[in-house]
Amino acid sequence: MKVAVIGLGLIGGSLLRALAAHGHTVTGYDLEAETREAARALAKAADAPRVADPETRTIAVKGAWHVADSVAEAAAGAEVVVLAVPLPALPDVLAELEGHPGLITDVTSVKGPVRDLLKGHRFVGGHPMAGKESSSFRASDPSLFDGCAWVLCLEPGTTDVADWLSLAALFLPLGVRIVPVTAAEHDRAVAQISHVPHLLAAALAALLEGNPLAATLGAGSFRDGTRVAGTRPELIAAMCGGNADAVREVLAGVIGDLERYDKDLHGAEAITTLTERLRPATELRQAWPPVPGSPVELPVDAGALLALGRAGGWVTAVDGDSISGITAGN
Amino acid sequence: MKVAVIGLGLIGGSLLRALAAHGHTVTGYDLEAETREAARALAKAADAPRVADPETRTIAVKGAWHVADSVAEAAAGAEVVVLAVPLPALPDVLAELEGHPGLITDVTSVKGPVRDLLKGHRFVGGHPMAGKESSSFRASDPSLFDGCAWVLCLEPGTTDVADWLSLAALFLPLGVRIVPVTAAEHDRAVAQISHVPHLLAAALAALLEGNPLAATLGAGSFRDGTRVAGTRPELIAAMCGGNADAVREVLAGVIGDLERYDKDLHGAEAITTLTERLRPATELRQAWPPVPGSPVELPVDAGALLALGRAGGWVTAVDGDSISGITAGN
Repeated sequence: MKVAVIGLGLIGGSLLRALAAHGHTVTGYDLEAETREAARALAKAADAPRVADPETRTIAVKGAWHVADSVAEAAAGAEVVVLAVPLPALPDVLAELEGHPGLITDVTSVKGPVRDLLKGHRFVGGHPMAGKESSSFRASDPSLFDGCAWVLCLEPGTTDVADWLSLAALFLPLGVRIVPVTAAEHDRAVAQISHVPHLLAAALAALLEGNPLAATLGAGSFRDGTRVAGTRPELIAAMCGGNADAVREVLAGVIGDLERYDKDLHGAEAITTLTERLRPATELRQAWPPVPGSPVELPVDAGALLALGRAGGWVTAVDGDSISGITAGN
Repeated sequence: MKVAVIGLGLIGGSLLRALAAHGHTVTGYDLEAETREAARALAKAADAPRVADPETRTIAVKGAWHVADSVAEAAAGAEVVVLAVPLPALPDVLAELEGHPGLITDVTSVKGPVRDLLKGHRFVGGHPMAGKESSSFRASDPSLFDGCAWVLCLEPGTTDVADWLSLAALFLPLGVRIVPVTAAEHDRAVAQISHVPHLLAAALAALLEGNPLAATLGAGSFRDGTRVAGTRPELIAAMCGGNADAVREVLAGVIGDLERYDKDLHGAEAITTLTERLRPATELRQAWPPVPGSPVELPVDAGALLALGRAGGWVTAVDGDSISGITAGN
């Protein structure tokens, strides 16, 4: 397949490399000249076999990629354009894609606002649940997506799921679990499992201010509880700000829980009360991550796909009008 | 040295094994018969060299340990008794140590209440900053303390630091950094870097309730942000409840930060405002953990030791009346 990847940070760069390694014809573009140069240099250096094509009389590096000098050049002729830029950069990129006839997807961590921006395009929103606190092309890794959940959005009213299936077929070979959800369900879930966790990590890391003793005593619980606070603040703010309604709702719930813990600690029998308050959270964490449950065969139908995703299941294979999935096992 | 370890969970069990491996004569005791049996079975199975002692005509397993059937039996003749039971279990253990003449230390994660309970004993409070979410003897590991910070408490008025130095000399060979702090400074710092992080992890894990989609989408930030929520709720509640004043104060500060993030997200220019709000936390986390700074030689003096600890430094060696330390490097 001919694929363009716009934005070559951690996710875009990793996807460029992963799709090229899987034999697709991939062209990348990044706004920063330095990143384009880094991506070009790595493509040349890739120690993949050189393949001579007798028809075109060219020699190509198998598994390598091309880097274009504009969005339009990258997207020209692409069957799929993947937008891998932060949400605030999307409008400028879309202006350059005006009139592009191909299928567009994205990897942004918020889906409602992107869906609204892409109205009028052939678009399926996506979001691979993969990342690390480093965020440049230098940190990219073609195996980044191995084993991750990859959201592809649907709405209950969607009647034609052909584009959705094309993207599932494109990404499944990277070793991902395709999760069908609506944009709204996605945005609420990622506020819970990604955006708000970044804010809690930042609030914990802020406790080190003027506090070298705490920094020296910090061990495993501090290390893990603050890891994602090392992410660039622009990225945390962009993902939380782009999903502000859901983030604020989840944050209010978390603050409510923290206030209940505080009240328990103030009351008589504090340890007993707090123990019972914490027990469900402990059990939920001990049962996580979900294990694969039972295999299911699904009709080519948005409602059936969404029911699977809402119940924690995912799609494992698509083949014509046959869709295989698996339920969540706990 | 002849050492007794009372309580053979993760920390006590690991310490029993580590001190035995370093050639000390170690006796352990646990309230649970099953744990005593597990500790005895491992002592017999330990594949350490059998050493014949021609004077006593006995054959001992080098690096093994003894398991007693009561606190009093374990403590009999011990130069150091280490209390490794949860805070709520301490009063019962102390009743059995009535009149014990030797030095007592502990590994509890809160130091003010333990100091108050131990009044009248030869006592130096301690706390190794090591752990994992498993908490039984089965999870014990003699290398658990390698590289960890080990708090030993002092107060500004302490004139005789001989017992403090004995314990520093006992634990330093396990590969630890000895951090001198007052009980109050310790309790505030661990509320920040351990107790409150456990509560934030629980509040995040609680979001999975009735929410299989979030469980399936959870990836690195959720995994790390909730890891310690898998700890037994009794242990989290005991450490937070035993340090309730400091925990509540730190929790109030964290809730204040979260409310400021919420306000930023509601305002105009949300992304810009939130970016600047988060920047100091990001920089603090990126500069963590502190690296070793400069070596220092210290007088045998509580005030000098406490100044080192307060500034994030630690003790690296004690030898008679010479104390070597190192400052925090960032």
